[in-house]
Amino acid sequence: MACIVMKFGGTSVADIERIRHVATRVKREVDAGHSVAVVVSAMAGATNQLVENVRSAARLYDLREYDAIVSSGENVTAGLLSVILQDMGVAARSWQGWQIPIVTDEAHGSARILEIRSEELRHRLENGEVAVVAGFQGLEPNRNRITTLGRGGSDTSAVALAAALKADRCDIYTDVDGVYTSDPRIVKGARKLDRVTYEEMLEMASQGAKVLQTRSVEMAMKHHVPVQVRSTFEERPGTLVVDEEEIVEKAVVSGVTYSRDEAKITLRNVPDRPGVAASIFGPLADSAINVDMIVQNISPDTKTTDMTFTVSRSDLDRAVGVLESRRDELGYADLSAEEDVVKVSVIGVGMRSHAGVAQQMFQALASRGINIQVITTSEIKVSVLIEEAFLELALRSLHTAYGLDAT
Amino acid sequence: MACIVMKFGGTSVADIERIRHVATRVKREVDAGHSVAVVVSAMAGATNQLVENVRSAARLYDLREYDAIVSSGENVTAGLLSVILQDMGVAARSWQGWQIPIVTDEAHGSARILEIRSEELRHRLENGEVAVVAGFQGLEPNRNRITTLGRGGSDTSAVALAAALKADRCDIYTDVDGVYTSDPRIVKGARKLDRVTYEEMLEMASQGAKVLQTRSVEMAMKHHVPVQVRSTFEERPGTLVVDEEEIVEKAVVSGVTYSRDEAKITLRNVPDRPGVAASIFGPLADSAINVDMIVQNISPDTKTTDMTFTVSRSDLDRAVGVLESRRDELGYADLSAEEDVVKVSVIGVGMRSHAGVAQQMFQALASRGINIQVITTSEIKVSVLIEEAFLELALRSLHTAYGLDAT
Repeated sequence: MACIVMKFGGTSVADIERIRHVATRVKREVDAGHSVAVVVSAMAGATNQLVENVRSAARLYDLREYDAIVSSGENVTAGLLSVILQDMGVAARSWQGWQIPIVTDEAHGSARILEIRSEELRHRLENGEVAVVAGFQGLEPNRNRITTLGRGGSDTSAVALAAALKADRCDIYTDVDGVYTSDPRIVKGARKLDRVTYEEMLEMASQGAKVLQTRSVEMAMKHHVPVQVRSTFEERPGTLVVDEEEIVEKAVVSGVTYSRDEAKITLRNVPDRPGVAASIFGPLADSAINVDMIVQNISPDTKTTDMTFTVSRSDLDRAVGVLESRRDELGYADLSAEEDVVKVSVIGVGMRSHAGVAQQMFQALASRGINIQVITTSEIKVSVLIEEAFLELALRSLHTAYGLDAT
Repeated sequence: MACIVMKFGGTSVADIERIRHVATRVKREVDAGHSVAVVVSAMAGATNQLVENVRSAARLYDLREYDAIVSSGENVTAGLLSVILQDMGVAARSWQGWQIPIVTDEAHGSARILEIRSEELRHRLENGEVAVVAGFQGLEPNRNRITTLGRGGSDTSAVALAAALKADRCDIYTDVDGVYTSDPRIVKGARKLDRVTYEEMLEMASQGAKVLQTRSVEMAMKHHVPVQVRSTFEERPGTLVVDEEEIVEKAVVSGVTYSRDEAKITLRNVPDRPGVAASIFGPLADSAINVDMIVQNISPDTKTTDMTFTVSRSDLDRAVGVLESRRDELGYADLSAEEDVVKVSVIGVGMRSHAGVAQQMFQALASRGINIQVITTSEIKVSVLIEEAFLELALRSLHTAYGLDAT
């Protein structure tokens, strides 16, 4: 008898019929003798509607109230799934974040889980009751106000719960049937991966693959929670996310991802003095603008430097505003901003032991006439910024170049 | 500086624009120097949608889950009103039932409030923060599961909160501007009452006037909470619900109400032996069917009795089922059920000191050819059951007969 956490996203619980289908999947695990905790998202569209209501209420709003409002969608799904499970003869009850409680820090709107008091839950699971837990929400340390974990937070709720319960498996049910080598809507030959390492999954999530929330992967890696990404609607097995040691044949590259949420800013002829980077990026950080890729070119002749970096598209206007307001202080000659860029990344733990992966990428792109604007690398990833028009061509070329195409 | 509880119903908070309007009314009281707690219902339609979801999930459902689901609508309104108040520069925070807590008994779906821990709230009110409280909900004594107070429960939340805070006023804002002598949609000459006693209001609420929930009036009477029913959308004063001593000129009849939610059952030739009433009404009570008016006619010749009584229309089929399943045991000759009946009541504390009120009612109805099927009376009320077709005629005739028409 195993202990299993099952997580169902918004499209999987979009209406009563789909929740009924989810209940049959839960019942099957219960009938197989397993202890089951289920984590649910809000019904598809419900959270967006609530967020829209908050935004039309006020331009600037108290994040504590935002959390109190937007967390209600998950409570509804948890209650409905419990009702349906009971109707099928499966003992079940719903749990809201404060009832367990799932204690988080005070960062309303994007809180981190600190502790899950799982004794009562574990006791009930052992007695055969299914715990249906509202995802995405928690309780701040004073235990009076609701927090939320940020978009996609239900994945994190599920992994954290699996860690607290020392569950044997955490199954993330979604509308795709696993993790793919690339986006199958663009790359025809994209293949579902049977296994992927936590580190690869983490890079894929942060480099644009939307299948799991980044924080949930970090947490799974930290607590060694065996995660499986699989389809709510189809029966076949999904993709296991596991420790590197559990993968015998490590691919050099296991995936090619992309992100369209990129915008490029270039400052030309910035006086090249110590601390110039801090003087540019400090004010951006103060305005809660995340900077991703950064390139600095120094012209020794003019004693100035060109600084190029990327931000998320939704932050571009604000970033430009911050930099223009400090133009005199920063002393740059020219500021340019571009939105028609995308980031393409190749990811694989095999890179650690293989040289030439980046070189292969640059050649594949060059052979198609694709110009690289910015490059960043990590131990298991190479990312390049290119013009958006070349996105599909780049993905297909790289997928083929690294031998990932399905045969 | 007074302490005021303001309650806004579903139509008053139906969308963001209306919540904004509610916020201006709250702000006005704050600007006048008052401490203000606001109790809100769910946005109009939201609770019905949730109830419909629960019902389509399962025919029989766990009321604890029902409560967890349907209470979410009020949480959303409380959060949105807080956001808008803050945006107007008014300090405010939302409070869900479990956060205060509002402790109730365990009767999920129709719980009664046992205690409101109002120290923290009072402290904050005194410091100028508006408390925006989600109505209709509470927490059962073990303090882990959400309860709801039954339909219209937000009125009760408001009055209970006013009692706990020892508030100077409890203003119930709604889509009508007060309590009327009769339904103005039917009786043209119906007048708004400036004042009405708790007892009259209680009879009016339980005899069909939908302006306040019965329990909220009981609670206001018990704790001497001065309640005012008034319009959210218009400025003029509403109706004060007060102790009898505060009304100098007591009308003999202050209102004529009606209820269409009536069905009549007649059992003919029931053997007339001791305990026959118990044998009929016991099984109905066991099936949670409320019986209202009862008439028993004894025929000394045949040693049988005819028993006529009313139930709510939604209970009729179930009531008939219960009685038919016990036909042999009860020994009646014939069972008939009718739905085309209504109950009309005249209410007034002045009845206590005036004879002939009932007689006046019977005469007024007889003069219009309206047949009375069943009669019940209390100290301050006379109710009659008549054929539904005569409802409007009966209301208008009685309104005129008791001199209630506006001049």
